[in-house]
Amino acid sequence: MEVYLDNNATTKVDPEVFKAMEPFFCHIYGNPNSLHKFGAGTHPKMVEALDYLYAGINAADQDDIIITANATESNNTVIKGIWVDKILNGNKNHIITSEVEHPSITAVCKFLETQGVSVTYLPVNEEGVLEAQQVADYIKEETALVSIMWANNETGKLFPIKEIGQICRDAGVPFHTDATQAIGKIPVDVQACNVNYLSFSAHKFHGPKGVGGLYVEKGFELTPLLHGGEQMGGHRAGTVDVASMIGMGVAMKLATSPEALAYENTEVKRLRDKLESAILEIPETIVIGGKENRTPNTTLISIRGVEGESMLWDMNQKTIGASTGSACASEDLEANPVMNAFGSDSELAHTGVRFSLSRFNTEEEIDYAISVIKGAIARLRSISSSYAYTPKNHVSEL
Amino acid sequence: MEVYLDNNATTKVDPEVFKAMEPFFCHIYGNPNSLHKFGAGTHPKMVEALDYLYAGINAADQDDIIITANATESNNTVIKGIWVDKILNGNKNHIITSEVEHPSITAVCKFLETQGVSVTYLPVNEEGVLEAQQVADYIKEETALVSIMWANNETGKLFPIKEIGQICRDAGVPFHTDATQAIGKIPVDVQACNVNYLSFSAHKFHGPKGVGGLYVEKGFELTPLLHGGEQMGGHRAGTVDVASMIGMGVAMKLATSPEALAYENTEVKRLRDKLESAILEIPETIVIGGKENRTPNTTLISIRGVEGESMLWDMNQKTIGASTGSACASEDLEANPVMNAFGSDSELAHTGVRFSLSRFNTEEEIDYAISVIKGAIARLRSISSSYAYTPKNHVSEL
Ligand SMILES: Cc1ncc(COP(=O)(O)O)c(C=O)c1O
Ligand SMILES: Cc1ncc(COP(=O)(O)O)c(C=O)c1O
Repeated sequence: MEVYLDNNATTKVDPEVFKAMEPFFCHIYGNPNSLHKFGAGTHPKMVEALDYLYAGINAADQDDIIITANATESNNTVIKGIWVDKILNGNKNHIITSEVEHPSITAVCKFLETQGVSVTYLPVNEEGVLEAQQVADYIKEETALVSIMWANNETGKLFPIKEIGQICRDAGVPFHTDATQAIGKIPVDVQACNVNYLSFSAHKFHGPKGVGGLYVEKGFELTPLLHGGEQMGGHRAGTVDVASMIGMGVAMKLATSPEALAYENTEVKRLRDKLESAILEIPETIVIGGKENRTPNTTLISIRGVEGESMLWDMNQKTIGASTGSACASEDLEANPVMNAFGSDSELAHTGVRFSLSRFNTEEEIDYAISVIKGAIARLRSISSSYAYTPKNHVSEL
Repeated sequence: MEVYLDNNATTKVDPEVFKAMEPFFCHIYGNPNSLHKFGAGTHPKMVEALDYLYAGINAADQDDIIITANATESNNTVIKGIWVDKILNGNKNHIITSEVEHPSITAVCKFLETQGVSVTYLPVNEEGVLEAQQVADYIKEETALVSIMWANNETGKLFPIKEIGQICRDAGVPFHTDATQAIGKIPVDVQACNVNYLSFSAHKFHGPKGVGGLYVEKGFELTPLLHGGEQMGGHRAGTVDVASMIGMGVAMKLATSPEALAYENTEVKRLRDKLESAILEIPETIVIGGKENRTPNTTLISIRGVEGESMLWDMNQKTIGASTGSACASEDLEANPVMNAFGSDSELAHTGVRFSLSRFNTEEEIDYAISVIKGAIARLRSISSSYAYTPKNHVSEL
């Protein structure tokens, strides 16, 4: 049996999404900007897709949703747009973000620091959550942007976006949220949450890779990251990737319908909890950041004495896919930055395994995964030099 | 009959390309950066695709080909990378380009001008060609980059890339070429032509939309446009769009094989010439820039007394798709910038129609197009106020 439990890294394209995309490769292939029927033939489904995107995040008609290549591009567009408009060509010089953002935020901020921009990285508390009040405490006259993720990719922890949005609105500071891990897992409403910019990536909610979105509230337009033609009203140049845009629209519709969100928060959550509880029965295992206030599909578990990488290897032998953290970081063996931020002791820092489910996982898969995981932990602890000599060695109990 | 003659705007995905992409949506869907088999399963075809890309432009092994969203992103990456590295954080302040680049070059340059960068826009001669010597004349100590397209999107005119490459190399100035319209039409060899950076877009050579490439010679690495994860060796962050990358690789292979290039330069050229000759039989029609030294698939024809937009409309009624120039500009009715650059009189400026063929066009399609086009010209000239009163009214001859 193959069990894919790495849906925060990327997801399978929903067959219904693929079906919607298919005609736009070899059949309805015109450039949407062309005047002839080959171009115009793309319009009805593109308009429909855009409608699904607006509905999915409750964007107002007058606001923009820019189609990008992925959340990384959306994040770069906002932060570098703010840099150009408010810092290089304005009188601001400060950005507030968190310590546990995805690299597509933190690497941009690190780059801006080399350009003289001041960046505040807010820490998270021991529950892995950022407290809204901190944002208020750090906003100053020079603050050009606050960028705080909606849901963390590694723990699934939800951040107080509505409160932060309110604080930013009151202070007159633009607010961006990276909602890449929130879409399709919890309701996302840009209007209710005072969000000015919001990023997402289709492949995180069963859409195709290589396409994302950037919501921009009216009045918050920025210098584009991609200059060129007049596509996206001049906000993002480049021939529109019609098939992917349509796929993303359908994926958004499927992922954010009331039924889908209900399923995610009952059935997917139930399977996640079942998996998690089974692992937690094993001594000296903990859920990083605790169980409260998370996306329903994610659990990041630390298993004392077991290297995350070794767990992945053992599980992979039994065709189970999971992760030690965000996929971007997986190829190197560095300690998980989220676990560092939580102040885990250094022994724990390498022991995290992230399981992230989707609506495509079944009960049988979870049962199979539980038995494989239990076996792997037993095996790895039995050969672990660090674990074997700790006083609380429970391997014998397994 | 449907006849698509707008292949410089975008192309149909080759069914063989689509077939190569298909497994990577719903079946082999892992994140290539993941350690498990779902991720690793993407690697063999990705490696193969990259090999096809290297072979297609004769890149050396030690050089980079970065996968981007499109040529627009590739162009922005080079010019803004140069801006950050050589201008903002260096002691250069000048860029040389041409007057007839695609907006994804000129709009970036216009933006940089607002940031204090000096840009020289070299004009083309009456044959629509840029003379290499001009580049040498304008290079100065402060020059950070020369960016000249390989083939023009509107006329198909080929620029003297090898000579310009040599001039830049001798002067120690980095050289970028936008080869978006050259790939699959003529041999493109980055090593033979002294190119340091080269941009392309898959959808211009029967690959999918939403994916492109940027060749970077070893030693010419730049600050990335998309900061974030370590994908593409840190040169372009964002989850790799596996299906599209594989599609682009196969499209490159199909488009740049000796047989494909031979077919393009015999059969596709023959059909283009047949279409062109038939139109040129009609009085007061001219090929903008002349017939020499062009890509084999393109002709930009001016038909006195006939608005390009009206021609498109008439042809569209008969399911023939063409363009007045680049697709990006098609939605507005502005005069074609290339025709302006050629110094056409203002009456001519609105009369250009671009026909761009591909290996999928057939003799029957061209015969049908010829008859439709002749009819359209006759009809439009018969109702044209500007044409009716010119002395050389040949409508009666049609
Ligand atoms: C929170 C978050 N933001 C941004 C991204 C980047 O997404 P993409 O690689 O599609 O650009 C990810 C993906 O790992 C993510 O989890
Ligand atoms: C010469 C040239 N450069 C760049 C582009 C931009 O390509 P894309 O829209 O795929 O980014 C085009 C497409 O029209 C082009 O013809």
